[in-house]
Amino acid sequence: MTAAGASASLVPSPVRIIGTGLIGGSLGLALSGAGVDVQLEDVSPGTESLAIEMGAGHRPGPEDPDPALVLVAAPPDVAAALVVRALSRWPTATVADVASVKSIVLAGVRAVVDDGALAEDDLARYVGAHPMAGREVSGVIAARGDIFQARPFVVVPHPTSRAASVAVVRALALEIGSVPLVLDAADHDRSVAHVSHVPQVVASLLGASLVDAPERSLELAGPGLRDTSRIAASDPRLWVEILSANARAVGPILSELRDRLDGVLGALDSMTGDPDPRRGSRRAIAALIADGNQGVQRIPGKHGGATDHFATVTVLVPDRPGELGRLFTEMGEAGINLEDLTLEHTFGKKVGMAHVSVTSGSEGLLTDALTERGWSVAQG
Amino acid sequence: MTAAGASASLVPSPVRIIGTGLIGGSLGLALSGAGVDVQLEDVSPGTESLAIEMGAGHRPGPEDPDPALVLVAAPPDVAAALVVRALSRWPTATVADVASVKSIVLAGVRAVVDDGALAEDDLARYVGAHPMAGREVSGVIAARGDIFQARPFVVVPHPTSRAASVAVVRALALEIGSVPLVLDAADHDRSVAHVSHVPQVVASLLGASLVDAPERSLELAGPGLRDTSRIAASDPRLWVEILSANARAVGPILSELRDRLDGVLGALDSMTGDPDPRRGSRRAIAALIADGNQGVQRIPGKHGGATDHFATVTVLVPDRPGELGRLFTEMGEAGINLEDLTLEHTFGKKVGMAHVSVTSGSEGLLTDALTERGWSVAQG
Repeated sequence: MTAAGASASLVPSPVRIIGTGLIGGSLGLALSGAGVDVQLEDVSPGTESLAIEMGAGHRPGPEDPDPALVLVAAPPDVAAALVVRALSRWPTATVADVASVKSIVLAGVRAVVDDGALAEDDLARYVGAHPMAGREVSGVIAARGDIFQARPFVVVPHPTSRAASVAVVRALALEIGSVPLVLDAADHDRSVAHVSHVPQVVASLLGASLVDAPERSLELAGPGLRDTSRIAASDPRLWVEILSANARAVGPILSELRDRLDGVLGALDSMTGDPDPRRGSRRAIAALIADGNQGVQRIPGKHGGATDHFATVTVLVPDRPGELGRLFTEMGEAGINLEDLTLEHTFGKKVGMAHVSVTSGSEGLLTDALTERGWSVAQG
Repeated sequence: MTAAGASASLVPSPVRIIGTGLIGGSLGLALSGAGVDVQLEDVSPGTESLAIEMGAGHRPGPEDPDPALVLVAAPPDVAAALVVRALSRWPTATVADVASVKSIVLAGVRAVVDDGALAEDDLARYVGAHPMAGREVSGVIAARGDIFQARPFVVVPHPTSRAASVAVVRALALEIGSVPLVLDAADHDRSVAHVSHVPQVVASLLGASLVDAPERSLELAGPGLRDTSRIAASDPRLWVEILSANARAVGPILSELRDRLDGVLGALDSMTGDPDPRRGSRRAIAALIADGNQGVQRIPGKHGGATDHFATVTVLVPDRPGELGRLFTEMGEAGINLEDLTLEHTFGKKVGMAHVSVTSGSEGLLTDALTERGWSVAQG
């Protein structure tokens, strides 16, 4: 146990990364930057060469030592096979995959053990991992060593994972600047269904509803629509893989959402053309909005704080280089730290709004400080 | 016609505002600030007094002249009755209501004309209006004269609206700093269903899906969930009125969305537990995400430009007062103008990410300028 404890503080060398796309390449850059010896391999020789040129690691030769840690950075549908191969090939290494859905990978590895083609002892060296970064771009060319900084990194042990292997994966998370969280595969998959996969489907449904909207309607689009539909711009190929692999967790949440939507449609239908609709219809709509209030209040704000600890001040910002710089410099001079910020522009205007969130209680101070310096400010 | 043309450039005095909540009070502040004589009335004497104290206008006495323009700032369910009363009471005034749904108000006024209780000539002086501002707060205490600045203001004439009355309402929009757009009532209601009411229902459904999510799941929440669910924090009472009043336009869009969701559920269901699901299932998911891509690309970006003219650069920002100020000052020094910005913080970390959008082609310049000054920057 002392040896396992000691290994918790550092990533063992060498690390073999299998699959050098955005995540694999970025892991290579981050680990190489930290002085870890990184070996790279990819099914595509071109991709592998590019990752090596970018400094993510080197191509291992016959003289190189076996890896102590193997990271499989491949889509969920092929990750299990690559994990099994790595466990067999390097009989003492810890093997982790970084696919964004975990149960399907664990089930794939477990099936090979149940078939007798892999030992229980080998399975013990497998730990799942999910660094939550790199959603919007893809390919090794977009790889950067810093994309894991300040992001959650889910460590996903299974009931027979070796403590030392779990510690190695946790050390990896810390080494690349992430925030490690430990969840089992089912909890991980339900969690990402809630915070990532269902929001993706909802945003895509909303985006799809705009395909046939009249052009003039879209001129009225404000920050509400823009925010609600932003992630609808995601990559279809990637999302087919993710949603297929996590269908079991996404389905029930979406199915409840559909039932709720049916209730809303029934309520709206009873209101159409009826100047005095049944009271129950209004209650159904009010309950939806109220439950929505309650749900979003549960989302942790900055640094895990509740969002209602903040107050928002709106500032008119002329659209010229340096105006936002002046705004933030002057906020800094007033000793005010920004908690959040959204910018808003309107069709046809050369002026925007900055909605600035600050700790509750400091909004008056901020308003006074900015007004004194000539800014147009609105609270609320 | 010359007289009507001339009146297009100014708001006639006095203006009577009926209903001094957030929108009525803010209109009063904006018009009073522009030197217009504003008369105020509200069913609540307390609200009326507060609006007067705030400088939104004065309480009209028996000596005061009749209004040339009447603005009814009341919810959609009572707006029509107040419009009819104003048209009868001041037989030469232009009367506009500013409710956020327009067909229901026009139908209410038209019904009184059809009953013979109001003349066609009186109806001609009615014009609908919808200043698109002030969604997130309510009450006259939150009123500000600048909330209409740089926002769309929909002018909603009906087939028999007098040109001079339409011109007066257009002049009002310009006077308060808004961007006027002319749509008929049905087009307006369909448009706000698309850009505001359906997004509200979708965000509320997503928010409601989080009510029973495990606490630990929510620790994985990132900017995707936060943006997609942000407007779920809206006021239930307000939204019951809006959705009830626009049920006819919202229903069909939501109903199509539900059918699409049913298709996604069917596809997910066929994938559950099946290692090699039907190809059609994958195609249904890919088509949803692709249509979502296409829909969001139709939303005008800043100043009506398409969003793909922008490139995003991500900068690591230490969580200290003044750091964002330094970032934007240094961007200004490099001559780079920000097109959009989102900030992102992660549970448990004292560092955030600023995703900075700039015109495509200037991302390299920005990256170099910031890297030179010691910032950690990632493109893409």
